[in-house]
Amino acid sequence: MAYFDSAMNLGNDHGRVIPVTVFVAVLCLCLVIGHLLKENRWVNESITAIFIGCCTGIVILLVSKGRSSHILRFDEELFFIYLLPPIIFNAGFQVKKKQFFHNFLTILLFGVIGVFISAFLITAGSWWLFPKFGFRGLTPRDYLAIGAIFSATDTVCTLQVLHQDETPLLYSLVFGEGVVNDATTVVLFNAVQKIDVTRLDGWVAAHIFGDFLYLFSTSTVLGVATGLLTAYVLKGLYFGKHSSVREIALMMLMAYLSYMLAEVLHLSGILTVFFCGIVMSHYAWHNVTESSRITTRHAFSTMSFIAETFIFLYVGMDALDIEKWKMSKLSFGTSLGIYSTLMFLILLGRAAFVFPLSALSNYMNRNAGTSSAITFKHQIVIWWAGLMRGAVSIALAFKQFTYSGVTSDPINATMVTITIVIVLFSTIVFGFLTKPIINHLLPHHEHNILHREPTVSKEDLTLPLISLDESAATNIVRAKESLSMLIESPVYTIHYYWRKFDDCYMRPIFGGARSDRV
Amino acid sequence: MAYFDSAMNLGNDHGRVIPVTVFVAVLCLCLVIGHLLKENRWVNESITAIFIGCCTGIVILLVSKGRSSHILRFDEELFFIYLLPPIIFNAGFQVKKKQFFHNFLTILLFGVIGVFISAFLITAGSWWLFPKFGFRGLTPRDYLAIGAIFSATDTVCTLQVLHQDETPLLYSLVFGEGVVNDATTVVLFNAVQKIDVTRLDGWVAAHIFGDFLYLFSTSTVLGVATGLLTAYVLKGLYFGKHSSVREIALMMLMAYLSYMLAEVLHLSGILTVFFCGIVMSHYAWHNVTESSRITTRHAFSTMSFIAETFIFLYVGMDALDIEKWKMSKLSFGTSLGIYSTLMFLILLGRAAFVFPLSALSNYMNRNAGTSSAITFKHQIVIWWAGLMRGAVSIALAFKQFTYSGVTSDPINATMVTITIVIVLFSTIVFGFLTKPIINHLLPHHEHNILHREPTVSKEDLTLPLISLDESAATNIVRAKESLSMLIESPVYTIHYYWRKFDDCYMRPIFGGARSDRV
Repeated sequence: MAYFDSAMNLGNDHGRVIPVTVFVAVLCLCLVIGHLLKENRWVNESITAIFIGCCTGIVILLVSKGRSSHILRFDEELFFIYLLPPIIFNAGFQVKKKQFFHNFLTILLFGVIGVFISAFLITAGSWWLFPKFGFRGLTPRDYLAIGAIFSATDTVCTLQVLHQDETPLLYSLVFGEGVVNDATTVVLFNAVQKIDVTRLDGWVAAHIFGDFLYLFSTSTVLGVATGLLTAYVLKGLYFGKHSSVREIALMMLMAYLSYMLAEVLHLSGILTVFFCGIVMSHYAWHNVTESSRITTRHAFSTMSFIAETFIFLYVGMDALDIEKWKMSKLSFGTSLGIYSTLMFLILLGRAAFVFPLSALSNYMNRNAGTSSAITFKHQIVIWWAGLMRGAVSIALAFKQFTYSGVTSDPINATMVTITIVIVLFSTIVFGFLTKPIINHLLPHHEHNILHREPTVSKEDLTLPLISLDESAATNIVRAKESLSMLIESPVYTIHYYWRKFDDCYMRPIFGGARSDRV
Repeated sequence: MAYFDSAMNLGNDHGRVIPVTVFVAVLCLCLVIGHLLKENRWVNESITAIFIGCCTGIVILLVSKGRSSHILRFDEELFFIYLLPPIIFNAGFQVKKKQFFHNFLTILLFGVIGVFISAFLITAGSWWLFPKFGFRGLTPRDYLAIGAIFSATDTVCTLQVLHQDETPLLYSLVFGEGVVNDATTVVLFNAVQKIDVTRLDGWVAAHIFGDFLYLFSTSTVLGVATGLLTAYVLKGLYFGKHSSVREIALMMLMAYLSYMLAEVLHLSGILTVFFCGIVMSHYAWHNVTESSRITTRHAFSTMSFIAETFIFLYVGMDALDIEKWKMSKLSFGTSLGIYSTLMFLILLGRAAFVFPLSALSNYMNRNAGTSSAITFKHQIVIWWAGLMRGAVSIALAFKQFTYSGVTSDPINATMVTITIVIVLFSTIVFGFLTKPIINHLLPHHEHNILHREPTVSKEDLTLPLISLDESAATNIVRAKESLSMLIESPVYTIHYYWRKFDDCYMRPIFGGARSDRV
């Protein structure tokens, strides 16, 4: 950034002023252009941000006379410490909890088992095919990392097209899978860093899976505990008496604290902050003043939105990082072969779990009524939704193949450029096609989805009524009934008992809506 | 931070995870304890945060076995780029604009002329007295910087005690002076860095003052322009149609952009972002959806609150920085002499302008009715309000005497510790006395203030009515009347014409409330 040093006022020595200014200005531009293109049939937010990032990169290249295309070094720490937490927390905070938990098992299937299947296929495929194109020099650990890196999906693009009210099941599946996928890939990536790659067998795979289960449960417990603590403090101290500022600040800081604590304790911050968000919106959110509720809901969305746009802008800007391009020594043909191999593996890896696991999920939910069946059209949409690769892939690739964004090894530089190409290609090409494809597969106001709604809402209405006139005399009869219910439709039954427990024990302590919201 | 390195998960190499976690946890603690002590007669937010910072510092000292008391190096860039902008922007955004502009001249007198008088006295006094205590080695530029550093007031503490509705004049004076003072000291400090200290005469002083006027006007214009642009974009594009997220993000980013642009252009970011805040709350705020209004109002307050608490926590933690204490080689007696000299100069420097300038202001406003007269009790409160020294002093001292928070020169280390002692002493001792003194001087529901209100509000009611039945025929009569009005009570007349201009030209273009708000 030497060429900007003369323009410094404060912070002469560090030179963060100009980069930050340019970034903020470009973010504003993104916002306005994104709004203007909102009605456009092809473009979505991610593509807009990537394009603007590319243009900015070109301008900076010209200004710096070809020395550099980006003004902030990509720092995977910046990403994991500052940008990812608000995005994931907001996901948990805004998720429709009822839908999410109704489909919890299916989401876990896709988000956990799916990632393992996809990562395995991509690792095996690239290990087998890369040397055939003449691209050698990657270690076994690198191949394992590649599996994790290219299994990280980016569902933002698809979620912008799906409508939560029109296709609630599909939306909750795609959304839920996106979050769980983020967590799984990061956990898998970290697990891969630690294992002994000299002897890869079933035992190692089992070990990774065991690690994952441990991380999943402890991270969830930490997130839930932080959320409950926040709710308890907010309920007990009643900050709103003086000002809503403290309430908002406490929710924000506690959410962030949960993420950071998880990182300090070597857990998955993503899972923790996601569950913290869910618990906060279920309990803590109801203990604050009306204006704090509106503020938190919108402020968290805004922070998440800014972080997302920032990431895509950066990816666009980084695409022109000529240093890495120069360092990469592959011929055009080899590169093209590797890109297509990876794209093919991504397509295949995802198909390999979406269709079988959907069938499995349909089989498991056969008794829960038609509302949970995933139709073939939905399966295609789910498959498509996870084809885009995004910021998580980039961040993991930088973590694996660079040292603070810098690398001097040609192989590593090549892997970074390959990741960037895959992310750009999948986001732009698949992203462009997303709106048309989904509009073709799921025309607006699809009838079989709309007349499915009443069955769900009817149950909502009856459940709380039942729990209200609950009495000791009916308990035994009910217990027998519920046992058969548990066998017939496990998810609904768990949900029903959870709600009773929630009303009797949790809400009196931690606060929350009196009504039938979950 | 080497002792924490083993606990890293992400970002192994940089080690920002633990410090950030500890800071966020301590911030949460501050929030809760601050809330519990809210009703306390003596303690205020700043003191709570400083105490908790000290305690954290002690704990860290013990954990690190005496190696360090702080976990984040003080970075004046962190302060000027990330912490100060939200505080000042929020000040502009939440200020009661009517009161502020009614008292604009008086505020400027205190905030600009006052700082020059105070800085001159402190520079001259320390230049004369420091060598007498045996403290030598400071350059003329250092003495000039000391004048600016110890003229930066911190009015947060007093503002927490004053009530905007009970003593509107006093509140707006103290608040307005605080903001203008921040800007003036930073500008003065930067000016001092540039001037040729070998020949100090009246010409140099005039040059500094000229520089200041230029900076003041250009910074204001930049802030107003950014604010108007935001309002225009928000009005023209109507973001609320899709989501309020974009509106909120745009307001936030544009405000920040104005600050950063000012820094890039060597202007005063503080003044720019302050006026940007005023213009945004006058125009842009009215162009967004209802929920965005609530969100921005509360989110900006929250950000400002967190930044303030963060700063005081840091000051408390930094007080135990033993490295600097070891480096300072003054004897106990000399140190005590220097502390008392500086405290005396601060008291004197402030008294030297508050009382004369109040008298001048009363003389200027003699025709504007009793509402603008500053009583002697008020003068004492204003004097007292500006005795505390805070984060700006610390940041400027670090900028002058350290290189990114580190110094190896004993003289410089001594100056940093002196600044910290003065800030701690003034905040804690004067801060403790603020509530009792103000409650003594201004008992709640002071009658002469309450029955002053109606005169102000009556005028509010008549002014818009006059402007509504404005017609060409009455214009000439009115012009003559207004000329005599301008001479008799200039501020009110300017205000009246501004309001007409605002209603006719500005609001139709930039949006804003239809009513009589200013």
